Amino acid sequence: MSSVPTETAHKVLAEALGRLVLVKLRQGKTLRGKLKSFDMHLNIVLDDAEEEMEDGSWRRLGTVLIRGENVVMLSPIQ
Amino acid sequence: MSSVPTETAHKVLAEALGRLVLVKLRQGKTLRGKLKSFDMHLNIVLDDAEEEMEDGSWRRLGTVLIRGENVVMLSPIQ
Amino acid sequence: MSSVPTETAHKVLAEALGRLVLVKLRQGKTLRGKLKSFDMHLNIVLDDAEEEMEDGSWRRLGTVLIRGENVVMLSPIQ
Amino acid sequence: MSSVPTETAHKVLAEALGRLVLVKLRQGKTLRGKLKSFDMHLNIVLDDAEEEMEDGSWRRLGTVLIRGENVVMLSPIQ
Amino acid sequence: MSSVPTETAHKVLAEALGRLVLVKLRQGKTLRGKLKSFDMHLNIVLDDAEEEMEDGSWRRLGTVLIRGENVVMLSPIQ
Amino acid sequence: MSSVPTETAHKVLAEALGRLVLVKLRQGKTLRGKLKSFDMHLNIVLDDAEEEMEDGSWRRLGTVLIRGENVVMLSPIQ
Amino acid sequence: MSSVPTETAHKVLAEALGRLVLVKLRQGKTLRGKLKSFDMHLNIVLDDAEEEMEDGSWRRLGTVLIRGENVVMLSPIQ
Repeated sequence: MSSVPTETAHKVLAEALGRLVLVKLRQGKTLRGKLKSFDMHLNIVLDDAEEEMEDGSWRRLGTVLIRGENVVMLSPIQ
Repeated sequence: MSSVPTETAHKVLAEALGRLVLVKLRQGKTLRGKLKSFDMHLNIVLDDAEEEMEDGSWRRLGTVLIRGENVVMLSPIQ
Repeated sequence: MSSVPTETAHKVLAEALGRLVLVKLRQGKTLRGKLKSFDMHLNIVLDDAEEEMEDGSWRRLGTVLIRGENVVMLSPIQ
Repeated sequence: MSSVPTETAHKVLAEALGRLVLVKLRQGKTLRGKLKSFDMHLNIVLDDAEEEMEDGSWRRLGTVLIRGENVVMLSPIQ
Repeated sequence: MSSVPTETAHKVLAEALGRLVLVKLRQGKTLRGKLKSFDMHLNIVLDDAEEEMEDGSWRRLGTVLIRGENVVMLSPIQ
Repeated sequence: MSSVPTETAHKVLAEALGRLVLVKLRQGKTLRGKLKSFDMHLNIVLDDAEEEMEDGSWRRLGTVLIRGENVVMLSPIQ
Repeated sequence: MSSVPTETAHKVLAEALGRLVLVKLRQGKTLRGKLKSFDMHLNIVLDDAEEEMEDGSWRRLGTVLIRGENVVMLSPIQ
């Protein structure tokens, strides 16, 4: 089992730089945007960010700085 | 992918100084105001701040000090 | 942009000493009172403090010590 | 403004020792009792403590040790 | 006022060892049992512990280890 | 009172190794299983774990790793 | 009782690398996916991750980075 390569969280984030990611926050919000930066606390900056509305549509937010503590999960959009 | 420049959270904040920002708090509150200062914990001071009411209107608060721990996200208003 | 003077959270608090401030807490409570002291954790002491009731009236509390962790935001009342 | 004397949280607590205080907790509970001790984390011991019931009456608890993390605010009863 | 003896939280706990205590937890649960041990984080072990049910009855749990972080308050039962 | 022997939390856990324990989590979940390991943060591994359903039945989970921060209390099943 | 071997949390995780795991989060979400990596804070990366919907179906998410703080429990799917 130890032969399975360990893909670190950092690698997932580094590879997602400049790409579209989906971010779920603690308060139930979902955002998507282009990942501009991140740090070890998962503070992230998204560019061209949008926030999912209750009716399923997306509202434009522009550049957004998200405090890492509120991030539940992040997923690159393929 | 490593050629994508990493825009740090600090840079986003530094560039937003003196400009209008939208701040979303954990408790579901949304504020906007002119960013006067910030620190590494995301404690921020807004000038000419307003708080969004439930009917979508904005109530004037003046100068407001926000404890960073309550900040979910911050976005410069373009 | 770096020419915009950074007004620190500390300065806002120091200037509010002895003046009336509005304090919003995590639990949805709103208090107002004369700012008597504060520390770096935003533990604050209000004098002649009042708590906002659900009907919009204010109930007198006297001197109140508030644990900083519960403070969402603080605003000098002009 | 710097001539306004800063009354520290510690002083408020030290002066309240042996006196009746009102304590509001995060969970919405309100207690009152004689302040027997406190520490820097706001862990407090109340003597002859009572807990406010939903109908506005008070139930006797005796000596109570309260974990500071749950304290929202504390106010000496005049 | 400084002549009022400060009874520390530790002393309250030490004196309650082997005696019946009431423990209120963050989630609204109430337990009672014989205090077998405690540490500085308020992690506690109760023996012959019981949990209060919604109908006011008590359900037997036996020995229970409670994580201090969940303790709101602890009171010796006289 | 100091003659009452202090049974530490660690001793309760060490004696429960290999035995059935009941674990209550912050989110209201209740699990039971054979205690395989624990650490000082109360991160625990249960074997043959089951989760209590709302109808009072138990659903099999197998081996489960529980993050200590979510543990409210743990009780050996006698 | 001390002869019972202690299976550490780390061992459970290391053995689950490359295998399917079930992850329950604080917000009530349940995910499953192939465990690609983990660290000591239980930050984990799942590959081919899916999120359980309210109707019991599973929605594809792809690669997901989960912040450890939100993990309640993790269980290898046998």
